[in-house]
Amino acid sequence: MAVKDESLTTQAVIKAASMIPSFNPKNTPAEGGSEIYHEIIKLTKNPDPYRKIKEQHIQEALSILPELESMVQNSEDPLLMAIRIAIAGNVIDLGITEKVNVVENVKKILTQPFGIFHYDAFRSTLEKADHILYLGDNAGESVFDTILIKALKKKVIYAVREKPVINDVTRHEAVLSGIDQVAEIISSGTSAAGTILKFCNPSFLNIFKKAPMIISKGQGNYEGLSDERKPIFFLLKAKCGPIAQDIGVKQGDIILKSAL
Amino acid sequence: MAVKDESLTTQAVIKAASMIPSFNPKNTPAEGGSEIYHEIIKLTKNPDPYRKIKEQHIQEALSILPELESMVQNSEDPLLMAIRIAIAGNVIDLGITEKVNVVENVKKILTQPFGIFHYDAFRSTLEKADHILYLGDNAGESVFDTILIKALKKKVIYAVREKPVINDVTRHEAVLSGIDQVAEIISSGTSAAGTILKFCNPSFLNIFKKAPMIISKGQGNYEGLSDERKPIFFLLKAKCGPIAQDIGVKQGDIILKSAL
Repeated sequence: MAVKDESLTTQAVIKAASMIPSFNPKNTPAEGGSEIYHEIIKLTKNPDPYRKIKEQHIQEALSILPELESMVQNSEDPLLMAIRIAIAGNVIDLGITEKVNVVENVKKILTQPFGIFHYDAFRSTLEKADHILYLGDNAGESVFDTILIKALKKKVIYAVREKPVINDVTRHEAVLSGIDQVAEIISSGTSAAGTILKFCNPSFLNIFKKAPMIISKGQGNYEGLSDERKPIFFLLKAKCGPIAQDIGVKQGDIILKSAL
Repeated sequence: MAVKDESLTTQAVIKAASMIPSFNPKNTPAEGGSEIYHEIIKLTKNPDPYRKIKEQHIQEALSILPELESMVQNSEDPLLMAIRIAIAGNVIDLGITEKVNVVENVKKILTQPFGIFHYDAFRSTLEKADHILYLGDNAGESVFDTILIKALKKKVIYAVREKPVINDVTRHEAVLSGIDQVAEIISSGTSAAGTILKFCNPSFLNIFKKAPMIISKGQGNYEGLSDERKPIFFLLKAKCGPIAQDIGVKQGDIILKSAL
């Protein structure tokens, strides 16, 4: 995706393969994967291979936004419907699979039972919180995030990656998604495909430490934060076997999980 | 799949990654993949990681065999129906994807239009041939091959891999599939996941050279033989992008292609 030149793609494969033996096996995929990703960016001199696709996914998500918004308005439990929609957005993830029928997947997730459902804790934490730190995941999914942010009815700080990494949301895509209309956008300081605290900047870490409630979207953020004992709520679809196993659910399950 | 021990699986990943930089980029995936596969066998001391799954797939295929046979008998063009079924068997391929609904896929392929359809050449070559060399691919698929072998109504020599490699058919699985009832089984001498002539034994090469007609199943055999100018007919489903591009069809297309 970064370059068409076949000799450069071969070099990129060789570079990626040669990095793997030196990785610490205890590191998360988000960490190792991101190191490889940034080497490919250097090698191919393409600073943002997924840019076009990210923007296309945002356009697609925006086109179904009115329909999703009316689903929330007509729901008996608008907050829960917004949570489901925010998780449904997580299927837009080119890091995992290239071809996804978004609308079909969204509708499926809207009726799918949760593998873990800490909704009571979510609501009571939300009620007490004066603001929420919201950790964005992918571009496109970010459009769905605006729906949940509105439904939270609290001040929201939305954290994005510092630099492009795969199809993750940076400030550029957050603004295209309309996040700036509903939340304050900050950078986590990291350009890993997940929130790996040792790579985050002090300003983000300060906000993270003090946040009375944190919403963490997707697998990449989960990988970095799964061991933190903080008021974090993980919203994700367990797309791959190892993540499902770590959480203790079936692959494909949708999750609303409290870290506490 | 070869071993449960996590430290050994980590070692296997590191070993595999460390081999890639030294591969000749012009080699086929069947060649490089097989080198990695055999290193994993050595490292994990598991000589046949897919054995259980291969046998399970053969059992599943055998259970729908009578249904497939009656489809051939009731068809207006039994040879063509047998060809379609043999291609349909090619969807049983754990090297590509782990979860496949076999029956569903078979039914789809039975009505799917061909991306390339050299059926006239196939029939006229078959008519003149006194025997056919048939290059097997995966275990399970091998059960479907018995149907086409019977429909050919000629002497058939069925070539299998010398040693286990992924889910490919060896003599053991060929016999379980009933190939010994309809054809003479020989080993190609290779334990690569495809027919790579430089790894084949002299006896196979002699049969290959003289064969008036060769039926080559699946992508792995295609990778090794796509540049040969011989009376080879490739029967496969183009499962991945690079193979589809090389053949000049869409990914997912089914193919009956003459090499001449």
